[in-house]
Amino acid sequence: MQDTPVPVVVEVEAPLGIITLNAARRRNPLSAATMTAVTEALRALGENEGVRVVIVRADGPAFSAGHDLAELRDRTQEDERAVFDTCVELMTAVHDLDRPVIAEVAGAAFAAGCQLVAACDLAVASTEATFSTPGVRIGLFCSTPMVALTRAVGRKRAMKMLLTGDRIDAITAAEWGLVNDVVAPDELAGAVRELALRIAGSSRSTLSIGKRAFYAQVDATEPDAYSMMAATMADNAMTCDAQEGIAAFLEKRRPVWSDR
Amino acid sequence: MQDTPVPVVVEVEAPLGIITLNAARRRNPLSAATMTAVTEALRALGENEGVRVVIVRADGPAFSAGHDLAELRDRTQEDERAVFDTCVELMTAVHDLDRPVIAEVAGAAFAAGCQLVAACDLAVASTEATFSTPGVRIGLFCSTPMVALTRAVGRKRAMKMLLTGDRIDAITAAEWGLVNDVVAPDELAGAVRELALRIAGSSRSTLSIGKRAFYAQVDATEPDAYSMMAATMADNAMTCDAQEGIAAFLEKRRPVWSDR
Amino acid sequence: MQDTPVPVVVEVEAPLGIITLNAARRRNPLSAATMTAVTEALRALGENEGVRVVIVRADGPAFSAGHDLAELRDRTQEDERAVFDTCVELMTAVHDLDRPVIAEVAGAAFAAGCQLVAACDLAVASTEATFSTPGVRIGLFCSTPMVALTRAVGRKRAMKMLLTGDRIDAITAAEWGLVNDVVAPDELAGAVRELALRIAGSSRSTLSIGKRAFYAQVDATEPDAYSMMAATMADNAMTCDAQEGIAAFLEKRRPVWSDR
Repeated sequence: MQDTPVPVVVEVEAPLGIITLNAARRRNPLSAATMTAVTEALRALGENEGVRVVIVRADGPAFSAGHDLAELRDRTQEDERAVFDTCVELMTAVHDLDRPVIAEVAGAAFAAGCQLVAACDLAVASTEATFSTPGVRIGLFCSTPMVALTRAVGRKRAMKMLLTGDRIDAITAAEWGLVNDVVAPDELAGAVRELALRIAGSSRSTLSIGKRAFYAQVDATEPDAYSMMAATMADNAMTCDAQEGIAAFLEKRRPVWSDR
Repeated sequence: MQDTPVPVVVEVEAPLGIITLNAARRRNPLSAATMTAVTEALRALGENEGVRVVIVRADGPAFSAGHDLAELRDRTQEDERAVFDTCVELMTAVHDLDRPVIAEVAGAAFAAGCQLVAACDLAVASTEATFSTPGVRIGLFCSTPMVALTRAVGRKRAMKMLLTGDRIDAITAAEWGLVNDVVAPDELAGAVRELALRIAGSSRSTLSIGKRAFYAQVDATEPDAYSMMAATMADNAMTCDAQEGIAAFLEKRRPVWSDR
Repeated sequence: MQDTPVPVVVEVEAPLGIITLNAARRRNPLSAATMTAVTEALRALGENEGVRVVIVRADGPAFSAGHDLAELRDRTQEDERAVFDTCVELMTAVHDLDRPVIAEVAGAAFAAGCQLVAACDLAVASTEATFSTPGVRIGLFCSTPMVALTRAVGRKRAMKMLLTGDRIDAITAAEWGLVNDVVAPDELAGAVRELALRIAGSSRSTLSIGKRAFYAQVDATEPDAYSMMAATMADNAMTCDAQEGIAAFLEKRRPVWSDR
């Protein structure tokens, strides 16, 4: 497999949008250009009404080895900051996209690669996938990855990964809540597609409401979260799709969503 | 078993208060009337000095299938909002009651039923219990259940339940921290009662201080939480029951609580 | 083993600082004097440039049985408050020290002892270690321990420990994220030392940046956390050690940190 000058390939197979990191031989580094391309791809897919679920995957055995270190060497403070701002922008774009984003992780997901998995709404890993935040070993603590990692696996587990750079395997990642499911390598693509299509069968507007609501409530205090969500559910209940879904359920028939 | 017009049965078997959802044939829907009845029952048990621990359970094979969907069909925005406000009021009442509340879950706990389990202080499930937030399938995302669910099982696991509506079994619920224990169906009632009575053997005032403190600190930043809890423990230590408990411990005898 | 009047022994075996609770026969109570001594030891080790990782351990079979109850009996409100403020000061000192702190837990870690384990950055336990927050049994709810416990093991599990005082074993503590690893009793000291030395091989400044960043972001909202961490990583990337680490990685050689 040869690397191309295009670091990211975007495909639309409605109802799925598929973003593929495409620098397999270099282990899919998240260079500034690549991160910007993924961010732009997420936003473009967000403008495509036919896309209901997005998959983020990678060509080759590795998911992503993390930042492109050459970009962090001998730079000004402003240059450094620009790289990490670009990284944060990518993670924010994952959460801001009002469609579910699923990470498909076949191999190594390190540093910012691990962060991207943690930031996705869902993640499915191959049994051969591994995860680490090894920045400490090169003097550059994985401080932005730690935001997503801590919120996925909890304090002590995040701390050990961050302080040691040790890798965890896919089964451990599932036990810790970093990924949802682990499947055999040759079943990975199929399992992700099956999950994505199953979710894509739901109402587009309901998925949009739900994903936005998830990130609105997750960092709020519980009373604030409940107050917001009561309003959200009332609004949701007034939508055509909710009324159709409720009617279909009560009439024991399949619902027909408004945009099909 | 026949459904009665009374959706909720409240019993006091001091030191226990037992709230039973009583519409088994309809799978114990959390209609507005039922939610209001449970909220009122919690408040009434809170006025009963003989009640030290509350059990929330259900008649029949299901715990609760969630909201009564007929109540959400063809309504005004205000009507919809009233239902979800009633739901939030119930969950808040569970936390506001200064006695431990234990969910006894024999079967299906779906949507607002799953939320009620997540909101209880403790939960014990039968091996036959299942849990899901299937609102997405009828176009009505489980946004209020997600507040309690996310805080119980973490982000990725909550997201998968919310986006797919998939059921998890009781063992998985225990592994994820949604329930504390799983027992055989014919041991469920006994296990819950044993746990409740064991907790009820503690000082009434101490349980009250502790439960209030738990929810005061859980959403706070760690420095704020520590500051509040240092004050709380100093106040607690000055109570008769703490002084009696400390004395009894040092004198190697059983404590006698002030309200026995 | 005889108890000495010195409740805490501090040793420096560069790059390690080792704090040992030294009242084995009394099960290492966290008296006010002991807590103050540990806090002062942490601060002193923080002034020692040769110390890169700190181990907190205990002599004898127990890690710590918690507060010295004699100090809480028949006191004024101000006296009580002083004890819990001292306790909070200790936990805060663990987080404020810009070196990783590892708890080495051979036996019982109860109440404030359990809190200290939860507050440490990492923890390794012997298979014989047990953990509990049994204050409820003596009328004094473990409200300050609950701050660290809830943030380590989650709501329902913390609630059960707090409401029952039940002990959990080391394997359960690892499954719940309260400790990182469990090893045979005769391998405990070696395993902790190996872990500590491995971490101590990293850049001193990077560990300092990383630990400070961890606690800065952990309680923040995700957007605030990302914003802080992008700035932190840019600053980190400009340090000599990060530039050396990146260069060494790209040149496939071992890095040489600035303070070696």
